[in-house]
Amino acid sequence: MQHRMRIFSGSSNPGLVDRICDDLGVTPGKVKLTKFKSGESYVHYEESIRNLDVFIVQSLSHPINEHFVELLVMIDAAKRASARTVNVVIPYYGYARQERKAAPREPISAKMVADVLTTAGASRVVTIELHAAAIQGFFNIPVDHLTTLDLIADYLRSKNITDPVVVSPDAGRAKLAEKLANRLDSPVAIMLKKRPSHNEAMITHVIGEVEGRTPIIMEDLIDTGSTILKVVEGLKERNAKDPIVCATHGVFSDGALQRLDHPSISEVVITDSIALPEDHSERFTVLPVAPMLARAIHIILEGGSLATLFSDSGI
Amino acid sequence: MQHRMRIFSGSSNPGLVDRICDDLGVTPGKVKLTKFKSGESYVHYEESIRNLDVFIVQSLSHPINEHFVELLVMIDAAKRASARTVNVVIPYYGYARQERKAAPREPISAKMVADVLTTAGASRVVTIELHAAAIQGFFNIPVDHLTTLDLIADYLRSKNITDPVVVSPDAGRAKLAEKLANRLDSPVAIMLKKRPSHNEAMITHVIGEVEGRTPIIMEDLIDTGSTILKVVEGLKERNAKDPIVCATHGVFSDGALQRLDHPSISEVVITDSIALPEDHSERFTVLPVAPMLARAIHIILEGGSLATLFSDSGI
Amino acid sequence: MQHRMRIFSGSSNPGLVDRICDDLGVTPGKVKLTKFKSGESYVHYEESIRNLDVFIVQSLSHPINEHFVELLVMIDAAKRASARTVNVVIPYYGYARQERKAAPREPISAKMVADVLTTAGASRVVTIELHAAAIQGFFNIPVDHLTTLDLIADYLRSKNITDPVVVSPDAGRAKLAEKLANRLDSPVAIMLKKRPSHNEAMITHVIGEVEGRTPIIMEDLIDTGSTILKVVEGLKERNAKDPIVCATHGVFSDGALQRLDHPSISEVVITDSIALPEDHSERFTVLPVAPMLARAIHIILEGGSLATLFSDSGI
Amino acid sequence: MQHRMRIFSGSSNPGLVDRICDDLGVTPGKVKLTKFKSGESYVHYEESIRNLDVFIVQSLSHPINEHFVELLVMIDAAKRASARTVNVVIPYYGYARQERKAAPREPISAKMVADVLTTAGASRVVTIELHAAAIQGFFNIPVDHLTTLDLIADYLRSKNITDPVVVSPDAGRAKLAEKLANRLDSPVAIMLKKRPSHNEAMITHVIGEVEGRTPIIMEDLIDTGSTILKVVEGLKERNAKDPIVCATHGVFSDGALQRLDHPSISEVVITDSIALPEDHSERFTVLPVAPMLARAIHIILEGGSLATLFSDSGI
Amino acid sequence: MQHRMRIFSGSSNPGLVDRICDDLGVTPGKVKLTKFKSGESYVHYEESIRNLDVFIVQSLSHPINEHFVELLVMIDAAKRASARTVNVVIPYYGYARQERKAAPREPISAKMVADVLTTAGASRVVTIELHAAAIQGFFNIPVDHLTTLDLIADYLRSKNITDPVVVSPDAGRAKLAEKLANRLDSPVAIMLKKRPSHNEAMITHVIGEVEGRTPIIMEDLIDTGSTILKVVEGLKERNAKDPIVCATHGVFSDGALQRLDHPSISEVVITDSIALPEDHSERFTVLPVAPMLARAIHIILEGGSLATLFSDSGI
Amino acid sequence: MQHRMRIFSGSSNPGLVDRICDDLGVTPGKVKLTKFKSGESYVHYEESIRNLDVFIVQSLSHPINEHFVELLVMIDAAKRASARTVNVVIPYYGYARQERKAAPREPISAKMVADVLTTAGASRVVTIELHAAAIQGFFNIPVDHLTTLDLIADYLRSKNITDPVVVSPDAGRAKLAEKLANRLDSPVAIMLKKRPSHNEAMITHVIGEVEGRTPIIMEDLIDTGSTILKVVEGLKERNAKDPIVCATHGVFSDGALQRLDHPSISEVVITDSIALPEDHSERFTVLPVAPMLARAIHIILEGGSLATLFSDSGI
Repeated sequence: MQHRMRIFSGSSNPGLVDRICDDLGVTPGKVKLTKFKSGESYVHYEESIRNLDVFIVQSLSHPINEHFVELLVMIDAAKRASARTVNVVIPYYGYARQERKAAPREPISAKMVADVLTTAGASRVVTIELHAAAIQGFFNIPVDHLTTLDLIADYLRSKNITDPVVVSPDAGRAKLAEKLANRLDSPVAIMLKKRPSHNEAMITHVIGEVEGRTPIIMEDLIDTGSTILKVVEGLKERNAKDPIVCATHGVFSDGALQRLDHPSISEVVITDSIALPEDHSERFTVLPVAPMLARAIHIILEGGSLATLFSDSGI
Repeated sequence: MQHRMRIFSGSSNPGLVDRICDDLGVTPGKVKLTKFKSGESYVHYEESIRNLDVFIVQSLSHPINEHFVELLVMIDAAKRASARTVNVVIPYYGYARQERKAAPREPISAKMVADVLTTAGASRVVTIELHAAAIQGFFNIPVDHLTTLDLIADYLRSKNITDPVVVSPDAGRAKLAEKLANRLDSPVAIMLKKRPSHNEAMITHVIGEVEGRTPIIMEDLIDTGSTILKVVEGLKERNAKDPIVCATHGVFSDGALQRLDHPSISEVVITDSIALPEDHSERFTVLPVAPMLARAIHIILEGGSLATLFSDSGI
Repeated sequence: MQHRMRIFSGSSNPGLVDRICDDLGVTPGKVKLTKFKSGESYVHYEESIRNLDVFIVQSLSHPINEHFVELLVMIDAAKRASARTVNVVIPYYGYARQERKAAPREPISAKMVADVLTTAGASRVVTIELHAAAIQGFFNIPVDHLTTLDLIADYLRSKNITDPVVVSPDAGRAKLAEKLANRLDSPVAIMLKKRPSHNEAMITHVIGEVEGRTPIIMEDLIDTGSTILKVVEGLKERNAKDPIVCATHGVFSDGALQRLDHPSISEVVITDSIALPEDHSERFTVLPVAPMLARAIHIILEGGSLATLFSDSGI
Repeated sequence: MQHRMRIFSGSSNPGLVDRICDDLGVTPGKVKLTKFKSGESYVHYEESIRNLDVFIVQSLSHPINEHFVELLVMIDAAKRASARTVNVVIPYYGYARQERKAAPREPISAKMVADVLTTAGASRVVTIELHAAAIQGFFNIPVDHLTTLDLIADYLRSKNITDPVVVSPDAGRAKLAEKLANRLDSPVAIMLKKRPSHNEAMITHVIGEVEGRTPIIMEDLIDTGSTILKVVEGLKERNAKDPIVCATHGVFSDGALQRLDHPSISEVVITDSIALPEDHSERFTVLPVAPMLARAIHIILEGGSLATLFSDSGI
Repeated sequence: MQHRMRIFSGSSNPGLVDRICDDLGVTPGKVKLTKFKSGESYVHYEESIRNLDVFIVQSLSHPINEHFVELLVMIDAAKRASARTVNVVIPYYGYARQERKAAPREPISAKMVADVLTTAGASRVVTIELHAAAIQGFFNIPVDHLTTLDLIADYLRSKNITDPVVVSPDAGRAKLAEKLANRLDSPVAIMLKKRPSHNEAMITHVIGEVEGRTPIIMEDLIDTGSTILKVVEGLKERNAKDPIVCATHGVFSDGALQRLDHPSISEVVITDSIALPEDHSERFTVLPVAPMLARAIHIILEGGSLATLFSDSGI
Repeated sequence: MQHRMRIFSGSSNPGLVDRICDDLGVTPGKVKLTKFKSGESYVHYEESIRNLDVFIVQSLSHPINEHFVELLVMIDAAKRASARTVNVVIPYYGYARQERKAAPREPISAKMVADVLTTAGASRVVTIELHAAAIQGFFNIPVDHLTTLDLIADYLRSKNITDPVVVSPDAGRAKLAEKLANRLDSPVAIMLKKRPSHNEAMITHVIGEVEGRTPIIMEDLIDTGSTILKVVEGLKERNAKDPIVCATHGVFSDGALQRLDHPSISEVVITDSIALPEDHSERFTVLPVAPMLARAIHIILEGGSLATLFSDSGI
């Protein structure tokens, strides 16, 4: 496979690329990534990629604008270096929460990101659990949208939780909770809230039974974690057991890692779509996405169906 | 205003266009719409539209493919006739439910529709309550996305319903229910279901209190109505009162008008984004969208903010 | 060949696809084509097409708008399913008669169709006897434009017609008549007419000798057949023998099959570019286009020249 | 009008631009057109055109490639100088005869020209009597396609020709002859020929009555004139009177002006869509297109309908 | 003017926008610029911009990737809010030094930036002294490229420097030095060097007379200043007087402000295209670009010629 | 290699194509290139190119507009004939000197050329020593930009010139001179001039030592040669030896071949990127570019790195 393709890592998650390459039995491509003193991102592929299928792996994680522009520069350079295809693997697609206008005169940044990746020269996108599945449709190039639902469900099943209840911390995520609950054969509860402004959240009430149960709080991503903490609090007030918090993408802004290392949370289950600091608390369990990304890359090159990895993370 | 713009109606909803024009004090533009014996749609604008701002009003309602292609032909002809702008008003944006791949090797038809409208020559879209708000982002031309939430909430408030509960018939619509409930100061209940295949629905259980309450079932659209009926049944089993069914778009396929004229439903509240047959049952209340469309057109031409008509029908 | 390509049939002409596949020794691809109750077309490819050369065969025949939108949806789904190429085989390209503005403020629907197919994701078009050859130029993707002139001429020669005269029913088709006449070594006659409006025709006079001869009326397509009947009448008045009516595409709108099963017509020669009802009169001879389409597909995949199938159906 | 628009002439036909400007009461825009010693075309607008509607008038006449590239350079410069719109007036659209592939592996140069004009920055095209009307559809920007049929018919009617017959020198032009004949209330005759290769023509026979009549040979353009001369010869052999030769565009390649100054031709009627040398024979009558172009420009700026100037030069 | 346009400032240089607005007698537009905790840029225009000509002013200065993505988000939001035009004023166009591939498999980031701005929705760019003038050609939207040469030359002339010599610190900037020298009627000297890798510079020798003269070191931008310091050193070794350092853009990375506050430098002349810290040394003279930007905006809106502000900063 | 690719020559330089094909061991593709009497370029590929990698070799040399349009027609025909890729080899890229606006309301013709080649269907460009390296960035398709610096330096070194000095005839070319000088370990001198208008040049003074040395005047191209002659004159006045004139591209307009066959010039070194007339003076040495083009084509097809041929003729 090595003779016709090459996988390059952006700055966001080189460890993940090593794990993907290990899985595929290939060597990561050599690329020089640097920033000039003036802050401009620069890239230089240090081996010929002419006529090769190039995969660039970059999460749009913190610092997101740096990672995003670096990715654009990597795509531009690969296109101009005559790569046969430029496949962009974005384990975590940042800006996905700005996927619609929630108020007039706002941007739809998730679409801007999609257009701009295509303009730069991307020929395909591989990504995991988009915040809104319709973001696939922001692209006219093929998008392989992978799911972590089975990865997470398998892990949770292995724990033999008694009396679980999947909790959606937000009405907008109810579908996701329903999907996980169906996999775990568990009931669902939903937190209803008002969101007076961005980054603020006010829980109003809960529907569904949580008392005496082990809540599995299910999110696509964890950002500051403050909404999660309020959900935990609300659950405790309703005499639930200590919850397990699950999400695909660990954004962990603004001290979230400390905030979630909280005695009322029994465990935080996350994937490595975004690189986690080495010294995270033992409360955090990190599930690996490299196997599914490796398999996706294999199928993209050799043909076949991605159906078992396919995500319909729903509305 | 007449001297610089013209509003034309496609075949789907000429009555609505008359009402919009009445509101604006303009005359509907003269256009010949016909189909050749071979089934090909044909359009001929019967007055000069050179340098004018043209508004074409067409819902993508049944027969949807006919209305869609007619709209494309109307846009193409307007563009080639040197219209200054071609503004496409789509009160009901059909194909919106195929806004993501729910299985591999499916289309994202809602994106195809968006791309094709733009290719044909649309310079702006005005639409109402998209099935998924992210569809706005499928366009790179400006989209004015209007909401009927206040129209519906105002109507419901005027009824002074005692003990209402807003019911989402689907986890994926929970956010919409929450929004209406916040406007009505009402609780929420959610039906959780599995959907083994398209057009089939199996209700599993309800969360939230419905007993003794008047359910307001809130949907963005009503298609065959069979899911609604199962919801009604489920609510009755839980000793709820006769529900009110609300939705913006009355697609009413496959005998839905008869199906929903049901003794256990106290009222069906809908808008005229899709033309309803004249002889519908008295159980149906039709709220008019012409005023908000007229106001949107006025603001598009004269400037100003659409904020009060703005929809964020949420996730 | 099967391992790298797949041929899928739209709803318009599955029998033709079976014949093409038979010729090529491949199995038709499995695809689910359906319409929702609301009338929206839906497609699901039931086998992986990742990295394959996909051929979608769909005539833009009656009901044309349904077939057209279904085709768009099929192309969109194939593109998003990572097909290597999406080759669209359109045996009959409907809307071809609206290939120019015959009056101001008309559409050029044939161009809209071309643009929209390209936007949806078509990478190549294969078609047969376009109403106007310049429609090839509406595309910037390669178009393989095949001719049935030799198929029809070979058949006619096999009949050993005495004293034939090729008749163009319209000045605009004179070139086509001339081409067939050159192949048959026959004279030409031309009907001159005025066309006061679409779908209406008024024959004024005939130039060229027809008396005592067997007219071969040559058209690219037969729609309602009423023009043809007037031509037949005009020829009979001038003491011609019973004519043979030839055309590539049998659109046969509005009872044309009955209308042309007429005692003054000795035979109607047509191809299966559009599926003919099983129970057609014996007066109709159907020539098969599957061999030329199969050969075109073979050459597209394996390389080589389509020169012998090449159409210049001329101005 | 001067304050918001400017008309510039390319090198091909400055006299025509003067006449258009006279008609409109404006001054031709100042532009420096030159070629470097190395043959590269250069343009410099010598007055500000920021925010103005710019009209560039250039026929794609001999030397066509020079005029074409000069036009591209003029469009590029106008776009970059912030013209509000760049309207390209192409009285004679060269390359129109390569509007389809008449053999495999040919270009469709007329489409290439259309695409390239659009890419360079044209926002509208105004042209006269395209060789094939479908070329309008090669553009996605508005095309105003003007006709000279009435101009020519009016002139011919003023001559009170006795026993006229409109002759199409080619089956492919029969429709054009029919249209002129309908305007003159005259019969039609058609020359049938084979065209073994480009620029060569072999007449086979004539259909329709010409004996004792005054033939009006109708073409869209006259190139070398050698086909015309063969037609004239064929007509004389059939005892027709000396014909009048009519065409919109006088390309007049390869000594055509001398060739057509022929005793058997009574008159050559042409327009000034292409500049004719000053010293042409008196046998040539030149009809002016400036009035119709001036009127078109007026309507483009002020709105209204071009219907009476509209061309459907037919198939 | 206020009624039809609005000027908004990005985060990079709000003071400059205030000065431009003062000059024009308008109020800066109200816009909320913020970053989410996760680092995603967000914008919200706090007044309607429907149908207005919007000017967004943002230098691509440090932190460049943040400013660049913020600008993209601002453009996207303005486009979707139905601004009539989105004019992007980029006083300092970062990434301009990556305007060609200096080695294989490098990006051409300056082109990527241009494409991406256009994709996001920019309709025009106004910028000052591009590192390479050909970057104008990276755009197909109009670019107004302004010069500071006269601003700088006027200032230098006012100082009545005796025996000046304009020094180019690099062979690639010789043209710029020549231009300034022509304005000052001064000789030129050029430093020749090898650049073994990015960010490193090795001066080899000087051509032209510098001894006893006052060198005016002329650059388009100052980055780290270390090259400048080597040039200063080289000049001192050749017995030149203390030089004046001039540049349009003060990037001042990596302690450059301290580095250039050097006893051997008599003065550093810069513009405010990039905001300078308040507390800069008195050695720095800051020339204002607001007047030329205000004048450019005025002309863009009202028409007229930018010739006197026009930059041809040469090769 | 022959089975998957074909190299075709435009009219500009068939000898070069023969030499490239010889080098690669392939046969030049058969193509008919002709012009109609009306001056329209026509092309017909006389062998199937379906699925092949096509290389079209055409210098944009005199007559440049003819060669340019012929190239566009060749690309269009290749695209429509289903070539797998259309690789355009442009040894000399004409119009490169109009790569920026040197005055307002000028074109950027080099960008127009780039856009138009891409629109016509080019999938890659291979070129040699662009006048400005940033022109690479005018394209979004891959550009392989080759250098002749080593070819020229190797030749000059083989001559063992004593006391050489590389002379840049223009401040804007100083970098190029510096690069050659570094390769030859030679000093540099630069001619400073004013250019009052296009095609005129006025030398003002020289910086750097030339007395008693052998000047190597280094240019990217020689056009009329009159600037060169003035440089020669200026050098002779300063007691330099007879110079060697070097350039990649021999445009040789307006009698330049005679002008440069001058007793004060010891030799003119040029490449065959533009075909030189057979009967040129012995003063001219022509270095062959076929080997580097052949190697580039080989690498494009087989993969690998072009680094050793890579040009950064750089500002």
